[in-house]
Amino acid sequence: MGFAMARNLLRAGHTVRVYNRSRAKAEPLLSEGALLAASPADACAGVEAVMTMLADDSAVEQVVFGENGIAGALAAGAAHISHSTVSTALARRLAEEHGKRGQEYLSVPVFGRPEAAENKKLLVVAAGKTEVIARHAALFDAIGRQTFVVGSEPWQANAAKVCGNFMIASMIETFGEAFATLRKAGVAPADFLEIMNALFGSPVYAGYGGAIAGEKFTPAGFALRLGYKDVRPALAAAEECSSPMPFASVLRDRFLQAMAQGQADQDWCSVAAVSARNAGL
Amino acid sequence: MGFAMARNLLRAGHTVRVYNRSRAKAEPLLSEGALLAASPADACAGVEAVMTMLADDSAVEQVVFGENGIAGALAAGAAHISHSTVSTALARRLAEEHGKRGQEYLSVPVFGRPEAAENKKLLVVAAGKTEVIARHAALFDAIGRQTFVVGSEPWQANAAKVCGNFMIASMIETFGEAFATLRKAGVAPADFLEIMNALFGSPVYAGYGGAIAGEKFTPAGFALRLGYKDVRPALAAAEECSSPMPFASVLRDRFLQAMAQGQADQDWCSVAAVSARNAGL
Amino acid sequence: MGFAMARNLLRAGHTVRVYNRSRAKAEPLLSEGALLAASPADACAGVEAVMTMLADDSAVEQVVFGENGIAGALAAGAAHISHSTVSTALARRLAEEHGKRGQEYLSVPVFGRPEAAENKKLLVVAAGKTEVIARHAALFDAIGRQTFVVGSEPWQANAAKVCGNFMIASMIETFGEAFATLRKAGVAPADFLEIMNALFGSPVYAGYGGAIAGEKFTPAGFALRLGYKDVRPALAAAEECSSPMPFASVLRDRFLQAMAQGQADQDWCSVAAVSARNAGL
Amino acid sequence: MGFAMARNLLRAGHTVRVYNRSRAKAEPLLSEGALLAASPADACAGVEAVMTMLADDSAVEQVVFGENGIAGALAAGAAHISHSTVSTALARRLAEEHGKRGQEYLSVPVFGRPEAAENKKLLVVAAGKTEVIARHAALFDAIGRQTFVVGSEPWQANAAKVCGNFMIASMIETFGEAFATLRKAGVAPADFLEIMNALFGSPVYAGYGGAIAGEKFTPAGFALRLGYKDVRPALAAAEECSSPMPFASVLRDRFLQAMAQGQADQDWCSVAAVSARNAGL
Repeated sequence: MGFAMARNLLRAGHTVRVYNRSRAKAEPLLSEGALLAASPADACAGVEAVMTMLADDSAVEQVVFGENGIAGALAAGAAHISHSTVSTALARRLAEEHGKRGQEYLSVPVFGRPEAAENKKLLVVAAGKTEVIARHAALFDAIGRQTFVVGSEPWQANAAKVCGNFMIASMIETFGEAFATLRKAGVAPADFLEIMNALFGSPVYAGYGGAIAGEKFTPAGFALRLGYKDVRPALAAAEECSSPMPFASVLRDRFLQAMAQGQADQDWCSVAAVSARNAGL
Repeated sequence: MGFAMARNLLRAGHTVRVYNRSRAKAEPLLSEGALLAASPADACAGVEAVMTMLADDSAVEQVVFGENGIAGALAAGAAHISHSTVSTALARRLAEEHGKRGQEYLSVPVFGRPEAAENKKLLVVAAGKTEVIARHAALFDAIGRQTFVVGSEPWQANAAKVCGNFMIASMIETFGEAFATLRKAGVAPADFLEIMNALFGSPVYAGYGGAIAGEKFTPAGFALRLGYKDVRPALAAAEECSSPMPFASVLRDRFLQAMAQGQADQDWCSVAAVSARNAGL
Repeated sequence: MGFAMARNLLRAGHTVRVYNRSRAKAEPLLSEGALLAASPADACAGVEAVMTMLADDSAVEQVVFGENGIAGALAAGAAHISHSTVSTALARRLAEEHGKRGQEYLSVPVFGRPEAAENKKLLVVAAGKTEVIARHAALFDAIGRQTFVVGSEPWQANAAKVCGNFMIASMIETFGEAFATLRKAGVAPADFLEIMNALFGSPVYAGYGGAIAGEKFTPAGFALRLGYKDVRPALAAAEECSSPMPFASVLRDRFLQAMAQGQADQDWCSVAAVSARNAGL
Repeated sequence: MGFAMARNLLRAGHTVRVYNRSRAKAEPLLSEGALLAASPADACAGVEAVMTMLADDSAVEQVVFGENGIAGALAAGAAHISHSTVSTALARRLAEEHGKRGQEYLSVPVFGRPEAAENKKLLVVAAGKTEVIARHAALFDAIGRQTFVVGSEPWQANAAKVCGNFMIASMIETFGEAFATLRKAGVAPADFLEIMNALFGSPVYAGYGGAIAGEKFTPAGFALRLGYKDVRPALAAAEECSSPMPFASVLRDRFLQAMAQGQADQDWCSVAAVSARNAGL
């Protein structure tokens, strides 16, 4: 994801200094004009903004607060723009810690698979101070097809992102349950999917529905164990907000079962296979 | 629904004899060329097929097996085509009882709101003997935009229909939970919906999502108490098939809560308001 | 169950005429003084009360409303005392139909395994007209250790009975979930059970907990498929009362999974094994 | 809790040095022979074992790893015996950190309300090295009525404790759902409870069942917000062990709803009132 986003920034004419733990992953960008940073801190030298795209809360904490991290290197007034899917709690901590140092912080998670990142088709969700978002709008235009501002506190963008993940995961579970019942009723998932495609008219339904109907779970486009990391923060947000989410609770148990039964490395939409197995299929 | 379907049959050049308990509801069709039947039995006189569109299992049982019902009047070889959303159990009984009398039986439920029926945009789901479906294909073309054949046993179409209802109801509940959490996080449902519309690209999401975000629950397009009657058969099908459906179980409890708390006459998508209330909103 | 109850009635000095579909099952009672009835109707001849103990709703409907059934034979003023675990809906129908014929009706379900029935240790739950319960109190004293009156409408006793079944089934599921987690944590179910026995001090916990910890699921004391028939009416009662019962909904899905995965003939407490399997054990 | 436990240690003849953040709470123990410690570190001076009884994970972390904490003061070979209900994750960290310092660590959570602590009736659950448990057995005998050893790794005792809490919370929810349905059916909770008491024969059922039937939720014996802190670690343990626990997931949502609707300071068994409210009562 980060690679494609950096390339689109370069193509839009921005000066980009890139850092990745595996230097080899960053190098192809050099021929497109990127500069190489030796550390997260080095990537902060003299910039208006540093953008991070990482796997989860602990990776972000490491890059920001660890040795040669962003927190100690970013200039006052410059912004840390965090694109990772992290918990709302970490987003609040980042806002607070950057604020103490006179640094700006924005949460700007994105929706879209790697192909969408390559094609500049990401949906960009931003939250933070209005003027800081405005100042960096060109960066968001460079990586996505549309930017949505959802609040003035950065963590609100993370809340929107994790609820969006919950929307997708719920759709997957819904397909799983319907397909399981229909298979036992002798109705082919592919036949039912055709109707649902005509009904919902959604490429997301067509894509995931097709993968689940065809049981195409390997190779994983997005591993189930990471999918769980994307759904989990929705439950954490629900807890913070004292908002019961029974569908999210079911999802939690489905992911735990899938992992307990050996699906951690399959595609995350294979969580739908739990319904089939529980129905004796 | 039945009115619009009958009109489309007339417009397609079919001879149609109509029956409704409230004669006044059928009368406007007379000027479009329909003949008036005095009873369900009368509607069967000399026809190739009798089509029924009724509220629920008991209404269908009454019209088929009650006094002056279809079962006693339909000629051998003629077909009863049932468009109602009924349980798979009733569909099996209808197939059996019509079969005993030498009558044909097809389950042909439809997806679509009344506007879709008027505009010949229904999605038509058919199951039953291949040759019987083929013989009556022109009728389905006259009322819908596409016909999907899902099995050779009539009740399989009912299974597909009730699972489709489950897909829509799950989407509604998913919106309800996400909106509740986001409202407590200070993110406006309308802002989140805009992202979801860009993400899913589905008119069904846009329609229901907009109604729920705007809390437009009255007047009811489709009453919650009837919505429950549409979700219930999914649970019955799951039981018949020994297929656990935890999302459907959550939906059951949500509808019961909504009815217990006075929402029976609101639109069925108001079931999403349960999440808000349970979150203290 | 019925056999032991009839014997206790005889021992208490009551005149008892017995009927069972399998005559051989009733015969041993003749040597204890019972008279043999040729049909349910025959069992009603000249009696003050006819007591029924049957498997489920349909068995009761057959014996009451079928050929040579109770409804057509019981004298006005005499009572039908139904001990079976049936739905509240059937109980209401029985009250209504007997009432139309001038017959009395009481719902008097019991708690207790066959051993409890033999030892006159059943818990007897009665509902119906106060004076009718009072008139037949000696019968209840003859079969159980204590009688609890819970309402003036017969179906209320059935509501209490099915909610009691729900209490037991929930305890079983709770053990299943706790044991599964603890086994994965390396804690022996037997060790945990010892603590729970000290904590709850309940023979029911000790009994079921021991069976589940030891995975003693065959031979079935009470088959899982019948256990489901005992839990199902709790869900039906919840629906009638518009009372969401999420634990009952989970139980439904657990029983469906257990049956789909081949446990229908194991003891009903084997529903706890679903938790183990879903945890990858 | 800690106060009563310390007094019982004194009465059993042990030398006890006590520390509490509020010195006034510890002082009454001085007249019974206790010595006063100025800090957690001070409480460790020269002892064979330091016992902690605190509210939650963060309180334990503070007392162990904070300023003047136990970790820096306890002698090599001496043991930290943690009685608090904490997460299995914290228990593992404590074992590791004490181990690094040559200190012993045991997890020894207890079951029982404050009255049970006063009367030496606690159920003591211990895990850790066999010889370390044996060395300190007299301490456990001094505070409880029975000690249960459940594993050789300390966190296993915490797993058993949080699963025990889950057992109690599930019983509470079960009562809540049954009472709600029965109230709508016109059956008095007190009447049903009488049957359940005869059936289960458990003082825990009698105690909680009575409080819930009588809606005695204030003053709180144990506040709902703390109850949630006791149930939460069961979900965390389930996650660590990849063991789906759907009842625990329902409990989570029930507690969140109770807190969102203003019950945080009521007794934790008031979570049962959520069922009543959701049923429109």
